[in-house]
Amino acid sequence: MDALATIDIDQCTVLLRRAEPADVPAIVALLAADQLGAVRDGIRDGADLAAYGRAFETIDADSAHLLLVADRGGQVVGTLQLSFLPGLARRGALRAQVEAVRVADEVRGSGLGKAMMSWAIDEARRRGCALVQLTSDKRRTEAHRFYQRLGFAASHEGMKLSLR
Amino acid sequence: MDALATIDIDQCTVLLRRAEPADVPAIVALLAADQLGAVRDGIRDGADLAAYGRAFETIDADSAHLLLVADRGGQVVGTLQLSFLPGLARRGALRAQVEAVRVADEVRGSGLGKAMMSWAIDEARRRGCALVQLTSDKRRTEAHRFYQRLGFAASHEGMKLSLR
Repeated sequence: MDALATIDIDQCTVLLRRAEPADVPAIVALLAADQLGAVRDGIRDGADLAAYGRAFETIDADSAHLLLVADRGGQVVGTLQLSFLPGLARRGALRAQVEAVRVADEVRGSGLGKAMMSWAIDEARRRGCALVQLTSDKRRTEAHRFYQRLGFAASHEGMKLSLR
Repeated sequence: MDALATIDIDQCTVLLRRAEPADVPAIVALLAADQLGAVRDGIRDGADLAAYGRAFETIDADSAHLLLVADRGGQVVGTLQLSFLPGLARRGALRAQVEAVRVADEVRGSGLGKAMMSWAIDEARRRGCALVQLTSDKRRTEAHRFYQRLGFAASHEGMKLSLR
């Protein structure tokens, strides 16, 4: 439970730390609480929990991935995944990719999302990445403004092909 | 030099195969020949070649990444990178990400790009991915139509933050 960073939010100290197996249900609850994720995520039974658990193990076993949680007094109030991708483009640059950014409703507007993303950007810089990238559903117009305030440019089309 | 697939293009047989170290200069030439990549890529000296070589080794050492080339009689006429990313979202789904898709000018319009992408989508399906994703610069409107014909939806904003 080593803190990667601590942040003061609404007069509470929030720890940013690497997720642990016991955090999986709380992270899934954040994914499922999201309007666009509600149909796709949630733990209905042991098979779901096992599937999420296997995915957690795959992420956790590889230093190219970091699943982050924001922990306020033992409660998970935010999460994001940071992955480091090698590539030849841009002179063999490593790029950092951010996925599955979620903040609990009760801390929305507190600056937690900004603090989590700022930490992720700094970590990408520490690991020598040339670029941080993410995609955001076109319906999340507030999120786009949030990322643009952090310096992101909406320069690309984010294209998805569902296989299921 | 095991072929992953063979394709007939303009009365020639093109092999799709995993890239090898000796392919790196040809792949970089394809990246640099691209209008938007021209300022970012190219081999000017030994330091550049070494940087691309290190990136190649990182990609090649990890089965989560596959750097593909299209080989026509020993000449690299196309490339793409396919990466497999674990995540908790969508019930712990693996997602396939496509990066750095390039086809040589002389084979443009021959169907090679479509064949490469179709192979990548099939490979994502074989590996159990729930989703294939990519981002494409908003200025590449022809590319967007190409991906849409393959079934991709431009559902997301692709956001980038350059760190250099």
